[in-house]
Amino acid sequence: MRDMVPEPLTAAAFAPFGSVIEVSDRAERIAINYGWTDRFDRLAELDVADEGGGGAISIFRARPLDPLVLKIFERHPLGSQSFMPLSGRPYLVAVAPDGAFDPARVRLFHAEPHQGVHYAKNVWHHFVLALEAESDFLVIDRTGPGDNCDEIELASADHVRVRLNN
Amino acid sequence: MRDMVPEPLTAAAFAPFGSVIEVSDRAERIAINYGWTDRFDRLAELDVADEGGGGAISIFRARPLDPLVLKIFERHPLGSQSFMPLSGRPYLVAVAPDGAFDPARVRLFHAEPHQGVHYAKNVWHHFVLALEAESDFLVIDRTGPGDNCDEIELASADHVRVRLNN
Repeated sequence: MRDMVPEPLTAAAFAPFGSVIEVSDRAERIAINYGWTDRFDRLAELDVADEGGGGAISIFRARPLDPLVLKIFERHPLGSQSFMPLSGRPYLVAVAPDGAFDPARVRLFHAEPHQGVHYAKNVWHHFVLALEAESDFLVIDRTGPGDNCDEIELASADHVRVRLNN
Repeated sequence: MRDMVPEPLTAAAFAPFGSVIEVSDRAERIAINYGWTDRFDRLAELDVADEGGGGAISIFRARPLDPLVLKIFERHPLGSQSFMPLSGRPYLVAVAPDGAFDPARVRLFHAEPHQGVHYAKNVWHHFVLALEAESDFLVIDRTGPGDNCDEIELASADHVRVRLNN
């Protein structure tokens, strides 16, 4: 077991794992609808078409993990997966680079209520980690044939106990 | 010009135009993530692959239309389009069946802050209609080649003045 303190979720820090879905100056901002709307365009590109796949929208209702110890990571070899919080609460994002899972390369992020995340295909991640209370997330991920979920169980020495700064 | 009062957005009423993205008893509810999450599965199926298309996630920041008179409808012949409100405010959804635009068949819905909508390909709809204040929406729609937007300008006799019940 080891302790980790979450770092703030930023686009730059998260870039190796996917993208952060948020309004920002980095996004292309396009005035549409006769000026009534600004479109922050293509914050994430879905990658779900492999092997006859398509995309679907679901809602995940997640309860805070208790105790807050990370023991299992997963990855989706056939498709990206995107999460957008709907309940106005922060949450945690734990990832590790694709390839062989390396416990030394786990990164832990604290996401704000307005920030979504898009996991690139094959990026290791923990399942959704609500904070404070049961929370809903809009999820966009792959549907279709094939085995699209690998899981890995961490050795107990590699378990991550999350230390929140509040 | 004619007046319309919005009707409540329900899955049944909206079925001819697409689907309502919300937690409900109608959705398949699957316990996942070792019991920490309920997945309300496939509330909308993306339909964006025609003619080499893919899907992307954007954020629309929409200002309330003022005056609240509907004059223009649009449709996307190559892909579905989904909206999920992110700002905790209600909004309006105006649609008409696919095929030749028929002003007599316009339907006007009042969506609650927790309800998203998924427009099927070719369904006529008004651009996003925020209420109360500038509001953000997560949008999942098609990217790719081809002309994916038709617009129609209503005759002035067919303009719709929205009457809100508040």
